[in-house]
Amino acid sequence: MKQIRLNAFDMSCVGHIGHGLWTHPRDQSWRYTDLDYWTGLARTLERGLFDGLFLADVVGVYDVYGSSPEAALRNAAQVPVNDPLLLVPAMAQATQHLSFGVTCNVSYEQPYLFARRMSTLDHLSRGRIAWNIVTGYLDSAARAMGQPALPAHDSRYDMADDFMEVVYKLWEGSWQEDAVRRDRASGIYADPARVHQIHHDGPHFKSQGVHLAEPSPQRTPVLYQAGSSARGRAFAAQHAECIFVAGNAKATVAETVRDVRARAAARGRDPADILAFISACVVVAPTEAEAREKAAEYARHRSLEGGLVHMAGGTGIDYAGIGWDEPISTSQTNAMQSSLDSLTKKGTAAFTKRHLAEQYGIGGRTQPIIGDPGQVADAMIAWMTETDIDGFNLSRTVMPECIEDFVDLVVPELQARGVYKREYRPGSYRAKLRDDGLARLPASHPAAQYRR
Amino acid sequence: MKQIRLNAFDMSCVGHIGHGLWTHPRDQSWRYTDLDYWTGLARTLERGLFDGLFLADVVGVYDVYGSSPEAALRNAAQVPVNDPLLLVPAMAQATQHLSFGVTCNVSYEQPYLFARRMSTLDHLSRGRIAWNIVTGYLDSAARAMGQPALPAHDSRYDMADDFMEVVYKLWEGSWQEDAVRRDRASGIYADPARVHQIHHDGPHFKSQGVHLAEPSPQRTPVLYQAGSSARGRAFAAQHAECIFVAGNAKATVAETVRDVRARAAARGRDPADILAFISACVVVAPTEAEAREKAAEYARHRSLEGGLVHMAGGTGIDYAGIGWDEPISTSQTNAMQSSLDSLTKKGTAAFTKRHLAEQYGIGGRTQPIIGDPGQVADAMIAWMTETDIDGFNLSRTVMPECIEDFVDLVVPELQARGVYKREYRPGSYRAKLRDDGLARLPASHPAAQYRR
Repeated sequence: MKQIRLNAFDMSCVGHIGHGLWTHPRDQSWRYTDLDYWTGLARTLERGLFDGLFLADVVGVYDVYGSSPEAALRNAAQVPVNDPLLLVPAMAQATQHLSFGVTCNVSYEQPYLFARRMSTLDHLSRGRIAWNIVTGYLDSAARAMGQPALPAHDSRYDMADDFMEVVYKLWEGSWQEDAVRRDRASGIYADPARVHQIHHDGPHFKSQGVHLAEPSPQRTPVLYQAGSSARGRAFAAQHAECIFVAGNAKATVAETVRDVRARAAARGRDPADILAFISACVVVAPTEAEAREKAAEYARHRSLEGGLVHMAGGTGIDYAGIGWDEPISTSQTNAMQSSLDSLTKKGTAAFTKRHLAEQYGIGGRTQPIIGDPGQVADAMIAWMTETDIDGFNLSRTVMPECIEDFVDLVVPELQARGVYKREYRPGSYRAKLRDDGLARLPASHPAAQYRR
Repeated sequence: MKQIRLNAFDMSCVGHIGHGLWTHPRDQSWRYTDLDYWTGLARTLERGLFDGLFLADVVGVYDVYGSSPEAALRNAAQVPVNDPLLLVPAMAQATQHLSFGVTCNVSYEQPYLFARRMSTLDHLSRGRIAWNIVTGYLDSAARAMGQPALPAHDSRYDMADDFMEVVYKLWEGSWQEDAVRRDRASGIYADPARVHQIHHDGPHFKSQGVHLAEPSPQRTPVLYQAGSSARGRAFAAQHAECIFVAGNAKATVAETVRDVRARAAARGRDPADILAFISACVVVAPTEAEAREKAAEYARHRSLEGGLVHMAGGTGIDYAGIGWDEPISTSQTNAMQSSLDSLTKKGTAAFTKRHLAEQYGIGGRTQPIIGDPGQVADAMIAWMTETDIDGFNLSRTVMPECIEDFVDLVVPELQARGVYKREYRPGSYRAKLRDDGLARLPASHPAAQYRR
């Protein structure tokens, strides 16, 4: 079996996925504005040999529910939310091996400045940076950016393709490997013959100039993507090195993973160059009974409204006007079910708003894995072997105890079974993730065409 | 006399102002990609009770000289250059009191996202953030951003005024003071009645939405500005809390400071709310002879070409095609002299490119203060008393020894004379800078009108 790759999944906000859990007396997620909180978390993750800390981001608010951001604000459902990139330097300084995935939205970033930001992070972290490429899906974000409305789904991906071309040119093509000479005797820092202006004149972006940053350890950060639509999968097959796959049914996940890898192969990429991650939510304790008790105690703090706010943001359906015990129509349900495949409907006729809200649990729409360390390891290994995924993004419940529990109880069990590393490999994030230890993108990746 | 306020002036690059000094065997500025370098510097500055570390930034390259970026690259003249904001979190984590000024260009940032970045930094640093507002002046930056050319000087400031209005609304007007309740018992994180959407429909920017970040210690970061033109001074009088003033002649500096304060007063602001800083470059040693020797040794490593590259970027005159001993025409010279008032011309007829290059020394166009600790203190105090400035931005020569020398030799001398603090005041950057200890902008600042 493959070694399990593991990221913690978090966000620089109070309520990420398990809405309402900030009200738990032991939860510290309200400390998200405190650097000590994040450096402490980073050290715990490194103690548990996590590959990375993955930071989600949404630049808008969930304002579909009740046609206002009120319920999101009340529940701290991903608002307030701080910039994820700015957490990384302090955590990188506090750790040696832990990597950092940051979510940035290509619809609103300026590619020339964004490319420098990522290069800077890659330098400062010594090559421990990944980028989760998102295109956004909230009208509230478009309005905040001064745009009349969100562009159509597929044209957001077309724009993203154009964006990628600009940043690939800057990261891979502007500075040759041997451009930096740093030669004190001759007074030559960089050899100008080996630094090139890029010329990009695309449908959405234009740019002409040299990349402001000299080559960083990875040049292009490790590329994550989570699109599930056909257009999203095509984008992932083209660009992604790691994909997030949603779903609670192993068969569906396995099929998605197989499909994206096949699409990548059709583009001339090695299908093994696509690593797949699913979201996991784990509640673990020394015994199953204790774990179930803990999960039940956590669940008493969740916010049904917070979950509905989040789901309304995703589906565009305003559940606020529907009574708790009113049936939800098939079309409304189907919109929800698209990425909720295995959650049991109680029969369409009887499927009420309360049922929907209750399906949104401490792990959001992901069914939590609850058990003793052996049971959790069994469940994780079953996912690995039955779906051909490569690892997990572990979402949070009560922080930071959920991470501490995982590190103290599950990590040793996975190690004992030989499916989890006992020490970090040397090198950059990409070098650690890939079996061949390559720090830079492989030659079959489309970005490689811009190299000189 | 006022207490001297002091910032170190630096940039996330190899060659900032003293071009060529990276070739000095003891200089470590090539370590600018290394977090340890910056956290070490921050600790040294805090040991010396510096108020802040000020980070310049230029998002473009100096490509006027020789009509190409080649000479800039060769000399590492502000290229490569990394993102300044990303240095701050690690340095904030390594210090308690040191503040951080970051330069960001309103011509290329997206105001809604930028506002969140600054709020995030203000949260993470516990209120130790300043923003140097710049509008950019390089055609190379405009081309890199995909714009055909740089907008005209005054319209850049009009755009900047519009940008400021957006970010003031977000920082000051979106979240009321008591909006965050963080009440576990009721499950209410924020009171939605006290969080407001902004509605901005300006000539350059539109935005509608709530600010993504909850109120940070300072809300609006401390605002720096350095414009010297009439339009630039009008902008400073409207927005700035701190101004950088260029020039080597005390009379000119005094007049500029007086003028900006008078303009601020005419707008209903307290002229004492404008703190003025000049650039200073100090070479100090236990004796004057040693200081002169050290300065001469530093100067042997400077790059004449690097200085000309920098000046060409500023004036738009390509000096590459002029012979070293050719006279430079009056008009070319005047362009240079605009902010170079006191440097002695050797008589216009004999003023050659070599003279020009040689005037650009280890402190750039700022004449260095060279001497023993008493002489340096004398010179700094003379600036304070004769021009009514409030402090200095200390530019770097050989790093980090120039900062260590200053901390070890000059700081005790200034303290002995009663013109420099012996400990930090508590609180945010603004609270430390202002005599009244106010953490938020005073009511007379135009941003205050957006408060509820």
